[in-house]
Amino acid sequence: MEKLLKGNAVVAAIKEELLAEVANLKSHGIAPLMVIVRCGAKADDIAYENSAKKRFGDLGIGLNVVELPQNVEQGDFIRELRKLNEDKEVHGVLVFRPLPKQIDENVIKYHLDPIKDVDCLTPINIAKLFAGDSGGYPPCTPEAVIELLDFYGFDLTGKKVTLIGRSMVVGKPLAILLLQRHATVTICHTRTKDLAQTVRDADIVIAAAGSAKMIGSDFISSGQIVIDVGINVDQDGKLCGDVDFDAVVEKVAQITPVPGGIGTVTTSCLAKHLVDAAKNLSKI
Amino acid sequence: MEKLLKGNAVVAAIKEELLAEVANLKSHGIAPLMVIVRCGAKADDIAYENSAKKRFGDLGIGLNVVELPQNVEQGDFIRELRKLNEDKEVHGVLVFRPLPKQIDENVIKYHLDPIKDVDCLTPINIAKLFAGDSGGYPPCTPEAVIELLDFYGFDLTGKKVTLIGRSMVVGKPLAILLLQRHATVTICHTRTKDLAQTVRDADIVIAAAGSAKMIGSDFISSGQIVIDVGINVDQDGKLCGDVDFDAVVEKVAQITPVPGGIGTVTTSCLAKHLVDAAKNLSKI
Repeated sequence: MEKLLKGNAVVAAIKEELLAEVANLKSHGIAPLMVIVRCGAKADDIAYENSAKKRFGDLGIGLNVVELPQNVEQGDFIRELRKLNEDKEVHGVLVFRPLPKQIDENVIKYHLDPIKDVDCLTPINIAKLFAGDSGGYPPCTPEAVIELLDFYGFDLTGKKVTLIGRSMVVGKPLAILLLQRHATVTICHTRTKDLAQTVRDADIVIAAAGSAKMIGSDFISSGQIVIDVGINVDQDGKLCGDVDFDAVVEKVAQITPVPGGIGTVTTSCLAKHLVDAAKNLSKI
Repeated sequence: MEKLLKGNAVVAAIKEELLAEVANLKSHGIAPLMVIVRCGAKADDIAYENSAKKRFGDLGIGLNVVELPQNVEQGDFIRELRKLNEDKEVHGVLVFRPLPKQIDENVIKYHLDPIKDVDCLTPINIAKLFAGDSGGYPPCTPEAVIELLDFYGFDLTGKKVTLIGRSMVVGKPLAILLLQRHATVTICHTRTKDLAQTVRDADIVIAAAGSAKMIGSDFISSGQIVIDVGINVDQDGKLCGDVDFDAVVEKVAQITPVPGGIGTVTTSCLAKHLVDAAKNLSKI
């Protein structure tokens, strides 16, 4: 049993599967294409974009970017989404969030066609996730957690999973996906009393709190499986997770590293959704 | 402190609030009206219908019933929903479920106007619930639990709430509503290992398993608050909850009776949604 649950092995397995799917699409004359909608040019967005371009390129999937000015008006933003909805060459659309403050996510989320919504922005895909309807696309980060647990052969049935975080992008959708795998799920957050005890009681701990190294050794029981979804920057300017890796690594059975864990798998889930969208749209 | 958390006190409080709202609507020339869509004439449906008629009548809210044959075709069913969507006199629509087998809920749920969807059938209202957008209407049974806990003055912040059941109509939506109240929520179900221990660890236990008297004394720690959402029939043909009331009543701090607990409050939540829908539709 390997101590480190690394993302790259999961990425390689998904890649193999997707290469075959992309080849099949191309043999039907379909060139899978995703479009990123980005407002302005934030460094984080550009970095993510470049890494997605590389990953998608390796898979033979096209990736275009629609760059809108940071001060784009909401009406213009919606017109862009509608153009992408109607464009038969485009199979999936990823809208970078957070959006500029003049753009109301609660308005624009109704304007993207759910069949092209590869990262669960639209209410229809959120409802499908909640209802366990596999016809939609769950958000990529929680799905990456499930992909990694599946890859490493964990059966979640009846396992006590404690989840730290209740956000719309990770905590809440992940709770639903874990319930579908028959885990007993406890959702903790900033208001939870005696968090350390609740985390110690779990078989599997999933940290998605967005707080650098908050899960220290006193939160961990020996032999636990720890999945770290956090991507933070520590005091020395280095990337780190929500878990204090060095403090817990000897105690746990297995743990995902940061970087190189869940974050690595997220873009593969996005690519998988894009391929599914291309198949759904072309009915292959 | 009363031992029994009875529903009728909650109903009376909601009634007082709604009478004022209905009077205000009527002063603007609006007569709030709900329509039930029922297929066939099952005894349970008719019983619910009659009790809703009485409750709505007391509040001055109209209630009509569209009775369709048990073998109604899906196309005809959808046409009925569309007629109700367009009817300006109708403010809310309740579709009785389960539907006959030729009607696919996953199809028809897209055809009801979410603004008239008073019991969370439509994907848009499910997504609003999930996102914490108060513009929708949550399903009535989980909301009745929250109304009752609020009425009796429970602050859920940081409380350990264990929920037994993960259905689309109670368990999953209730988990979301409890998270919004800042509870630490554990969701258990048929695959949970050591259910009794997990239930004993909670501050508040909510049973929504649909299994007569399954929560016995060995599941309960003294001083717990117990909310029983189950409505079952026991071996003697009497109504009972998921909790073995007689076995646990001495041990718990407070408990909802069945009948006379959560079930009683559900129709009041439905009436509240109808009044909200009438206000939303007429922009009062």
